[in-house]
Amino acid sequence: MQNQTNVILDCDPGHDDAISIILAASKISPLKIEAITTVAGNVDVGKNTLNALRVCDIAGLTEVPVAQGSSKPLLNKMEIAEEIHGETGLEGPALPNEPSKQAVDQHAVDLIISKVMASDGDITLVPTGPLTNIALAMIREPNIIPKIKEIVLMGGGTFGNWTPAAEFNIYVDAEAAKVVFESGVPITMFGLDVTHQALATQETVDELSEIDNPVAHFVVDLLKFFIKTNQDVFGMDGGPIHDACTVAYLIDPSIFDFNHVRVDIETRGEFTYGMTCVDTLGVTNREPNVKFAHQLKPNKFWKMFEEALESYSA
Amino acid sequence: MQNQTNVILDCDPGHDDAISIILAASKISPLKIEAITTVAGNVDVGKNTLNALRVCDIAGLTEVPVAQGSSKPLLNKMEIAEEIHGETGLEGPALPNEPSKQAVDQHAVDLIISKVMASDGDITLVPTGPLTNIALAMIREPNIIPKIKEIVLMGGGTFGNWTPAAEFNIYVDAEAAKVVFESGVPITMFGLDVTHQALATQETVDELSEIDNPVAHFVVDLLKFFIKTNQDVFGMDGGPIHDACTVAYLIDPSIFDFNHVRVDIETRGEFTYGMTCVDTLGVTNREPNVKFAHQLKPNKFWKMFEEALESYSA
Amino acid sequence: MQNQTNVILDCDPGHDDAISIILAASKISPLKIEAITTVAGNVDVGKNTLNALRVCDIAGLTEVPVAQGSSKPLLNKMEIAEEIHGETGLEGPALPNEPSKQAVDQHAVDLIISKVMASDGDITLVPTGPLTNIALAMIREPNIIPKIKEIVLMGGGTFGNWTPAAEFNIYVDAEAAKVVFESGVPITMFGLDVTHQALATQETVDELSEIDNPVAHFVVDLLKFFIKTNQDVFGMDGGPIHDACTVAYLIDPSIFDFNHVRVDIETRGEFTYGMTCVDTLGVTNREPNVKFAHQLKPNKFWKMFEEALESYSA
Amino acid sequence: MQNQTNVILDCDPGHDDAISIILAASKISPLKIEAITTVAGNVDVGKNTLNALRVCDIAGLTEVPVAQGSSKPLLNKMEIAEEIHGETGLEGPALPNEPSKQAVDQHAVDLIISKVMASDGDITLVPTGPLTNIALAMIREPNIIPKIKEIVLMGGGTFGNWTPAAEFNIYVDAEAAKVVFESGVPITMFGLDVTHQALATQETVDELSEIDNPVAHFVVDLLKFFIKTNQDVFGMDGGPIHDACTVAYLIDPSIFDFNHVRVDIETRGEFTYGMTCVDTLGVTNREPNVKFAHQLKPNKFWKMFEEALESYSA
Repeated sequence: MQNQTNVILDCDPGHDDAISIILAASKISPLKIEAITTVAGNVDVGKNTLNALRVCDIAGLTEVPVAQGSSKPLLNKMEIAEEIHGETGLEGPALPNEPSKQAVDQHAVDLIISKVMASDGDITLVPTGPLTNIALAMIREPNIIPKIKEIVLMGGGTFGNWTPAAEFNIYVDAEAAKVVFESGVPITMFGLDVTHQALATQETVDELSEIDNPVAHFVVDLLKFFIKTNQDVFGMDGGPIHDACTVAYLIDPSIFDFNHVRVDIETRGEFTYGMTCVDTLGVTNREPNVKFAHQLKPNKFWKMFEEALESYSA
Repeated sequence: MQNQTNVILDCDPGHDDAISIILAASKISPLKIEAITTVAGNVDVGKNTLNALRVCDIAGLTEVPVAQGSSKPLLNKMEIAEEIHGETGLEGPALPNEPSKQAVDQHAVDLIISKVMASDGDITLVPTGPLTNIALAMIREPNIIPKIKEIVLMGGGTFGNWTPAAEFNIYVDAEAAKVVFESGVPITMFGLDVTHQALATQETVDELSEIDNPVAHFVVDLLKFFIKTNQDVFGMDGGPIHDACTVAYLIDPSIFDFNHVRVDIETRGEFTYGMTCVDTLGVTNREPNVKFAHQLKPNKFWKMFEEALESYSA
Repeated sequence: MQNQTNVILDCDPGHDDAISIILAASKISPLKIEAITTVAGNVDVGKNTLNALRVCDIAGLTEVPVAQGSSKPLLNKMEIAEEIHGETGLEGPALPNEPSKQAVDQHAVDLIISKVMASDGDITLVPTGPLTNIALAMIREPNIIPKIKEIVLMGGGTFGNWTPAAEFNIYVDAEAAKVVFESGVPITMFGLDVTHQALATQETVDELSEIDNPVAHFVVDLLKFFIKTNQDVFGMDGGPIHDACTVAYLIDPSIFDFNHVRVDIETRGEFTYGMTCVDTLGVTNREPNVKFAHQLKPNKFWKMFEEALESYSA
Repeated sequence: MQNQTNVILDCDPGHDDAISIILAASKISPLKIEAITTVAGNVDVGKNTLNALRVCDIAGLTEVPVAQGSSKPLLNKMEIAEEIHGETGLEGPALPNEPSKQAVDQHAVDLIISKVMASDGDITLVPTGPLTNIALAMIREPNIIPKIKEIVLMGGGTFGNWTPAAEFNIYVDAEAAKVVFESGVPITMFGLDVTHQALATQETVDELSEIDNPVAHFVVDLLKFFIKTNQDVFGMDGGPIHDACTVAYLIDPSIFDFNHVRVDIETRGEFTYGMTCVDTLGVTNREPNVKFAHQLKPNKFWKMFEEALESYSA
């Protein structure tokens, strides 16, 4: 377990984003959630914000500010992932109609800038959607760059899912990703290589169904839907809960193995837009800029996962 | 085993090219080698031609014409792989000083065109170097395209070795690869995914050392050198005899498992020049153009390999 | 002369930006300057802001808010034009040490968004530097796009000055330019084709020197420096006061001839980054998006110019 | 007038190519035409070859070998210019049905290579179509590069005609152009800047109609058609006989003014493929590689033109 870590969760919930928030809010988590910010991604930013507010209700995050962010990428045409997350972005469980609170009246980019500038350099950003908000914050206020402690993100990998070369989050806004990966901020990256190892299956659902509290039930309902769409669209054996790897790492870094590598973002290719070029072999002679998670220890991961959900029973 | 197949081996020997020729010339092989053509790649084209002639002597290919081809890529700057193959391109074994025959007085591109145009559509091209010669033949005489039976090539993969995204053969001349992959000719592709499974190790060397004929000794000497450079440069556990997969397939296709996929060649990327974008998930909706080898059965492969070398004892 | 036009001058003063502000503030001008916003360009954004404040003092713009904007381009590395504008960005005239007012405590992008959103759709944006602020405003609040009346900008042309293909303002932030030119907002463009016709020479200096008021003296001093650097760096016969064309047009549109054409921004070229591809011949079949100034009537232009400077005498 | 110059005319006739050949074959010309080679361009290569043979008959070039070359560009998709040259490529005059001779049985690329290699370094190549043949010759036999005396070509310019950025010849095969412009061979370039000054109008037709010989009549008929299509398609005031500038220069270099500049070929742009980036201002700091014709002296040009046609009367 870790010391307290102050985080801003920048997300597009999204099934796996929702689960990520729930892990972060659990009693076993050392995270202090400074804010949740939203970005266009899995579905449009308005829906993502509504979903973030709903998940706050479910997870008991009554005090955490939610700020809506960018509605489209820097340059790219907008693309969403309804095939995977359904029309609402969070299909599956019954959802509370109206969240009990509203988003704050501040743009996500401004909130990120003001929180980081006011901090002692101890805020970790946890983006689990496209990197538009983070890049815009860096472009607008470059002084945040040396004050960000770490960026722990889900995105990319040595292979793709949205195109043969690119993963969805990076593909949606590769220019934003380029800004972030070239910023010099320490980056810990959870790409498809490792998130596909966080694979929820029917067996997972069966085990988690034994945990009897509303949050666990909600997560189980999310997983059922998510497993099915991942099977249908990608032919996978289950649903990889990509985004949850970020928070899992912040709860217990020993769940993962890493190497330190150079990662460059392709923005110009004809077939490779949004690819994260991971220099595993060290052939580029470019300076490493990423702590790259390549291995997940499933037993540790799922044990943490169950404990987190069980902690909501108390 | 296969019926006779007429092949032109287009290569840049190179340790694994040399082994490929030796397998093709063995008594267990159903291949009729129409010609060997050379191309700039592992080392310069003059050295590659000399090496091809030497290997012909070793493998007893006294009648097969050897034609020298392109000395540089279509557009790219020349790059060679001396780190892997040594200064001569075939470091390791003692080499005959002067080959017993000379290259024919015809450019490789012309030889390929004339052989294919004179054929009944039964010639298979087997490129194991950069695709410069094949592309130039197609550009110069588009009428060969419908007459080529199949192109069985070593190149590319879902990951790279020369850059994080690109394998050496395709990287050296990505524009040539684009011409070939978009030509419409049936392509069977052996990329790094599968050639890394054809991994020669010290154990392989030990076993093969028991075969007592000059060709087998030559191959063992090649492997010793090649294993060492691959360990030194790439940190691998042995030497992947990439090119030999092409001939192994033509001797016994059941050694490999395939899927039929779209492969596009990236020529414009900032970090991804020469990448073969393999659409394993079928997300591009582009028509499949490649029979992509993803799995090698090691027992079958090495059994064939040993039998081929043993066949030189008789 | 025109009816009143409400404008935001987005600039990087810069000699020709300064002159542009002075024309806009003159008594013959129908412009209501809502705000002046600054952007990194000719020199760094801090210097540009200081210069904007100084020019406000000189031109008597005591009430106009000045807001500092972006300190670097969206994606491109920062480039400045000290060769042309000197170290301060406004070399030549004696400058007041400390401006009498300060920049407002609001980011330029926010000021643009709030002014446009609060307007009746009657605000014209007049960017005479890189388009970073305008693009960031559009990305952050897409709802401004249908509310902007017109964008009257200096940038681009059918030839370049910073590279063979690209003009400085567009080159500095081609991605921003792409966002703006593809936004759908009506654009009136003053590129090098026409701004090179607004050429101040020694003769111009001689004539303007006869106008006896501090603003005219200031402009004359600016021109002397600017003529010299343009002669030294570009070998021109004088100094083209590029940015002043935008305000000249808003004062009297009949100074210029236009055609309505498609202009696309190149962001991917190896040698053409930042080029404005102007489809004068209509060969692209893409919908026209720009009112392109190709001809300046010098007599009209300089008459207006003199009248504007003389108006400061009263 | 010049000393004898040995040339290979590489062309795609094409009205202005045909006129170029006729000038070269006239009695005032110091050119020794070693061969005429054809390339896909204005129309397909077969038609271009047929047209070249017909023009040989008209111009009395009974001994000059004609060799057919490349039927498509290196990488680009084929594009032709029927709008300008009509379906046959040479619409307008009555054409002899069957030429009196046939093309030689050698590929244009081979003919170029063998002529240059057999020369004393005194052959000038005169490409007036896409540069496919020249590039392929350089790729196939790099040893020709130091033996080519000069390349005198029609192509490119500081503006385009086929796209806003690119001229037809370079656009059709920009990769080939890149090979040629980066080869190191001395290049004299006649782009649209200067070829638009070689503008044939109705007045030209009227004057030339007074020359009474079959060749002059043929040229007049070509011009009538060519003037009309250039007016219809490009809205020009006449027909620019682009290609003829190359031979005009070889007959009398004093017809043109030049500067020595860097020219780079764009192959990667989204909107600028095939642009010749001409560094007139010297801002790239790249080494000049081109003698760039920017000015034509019309009186000298048309005087030479008339004399050439009159020389066929004798």
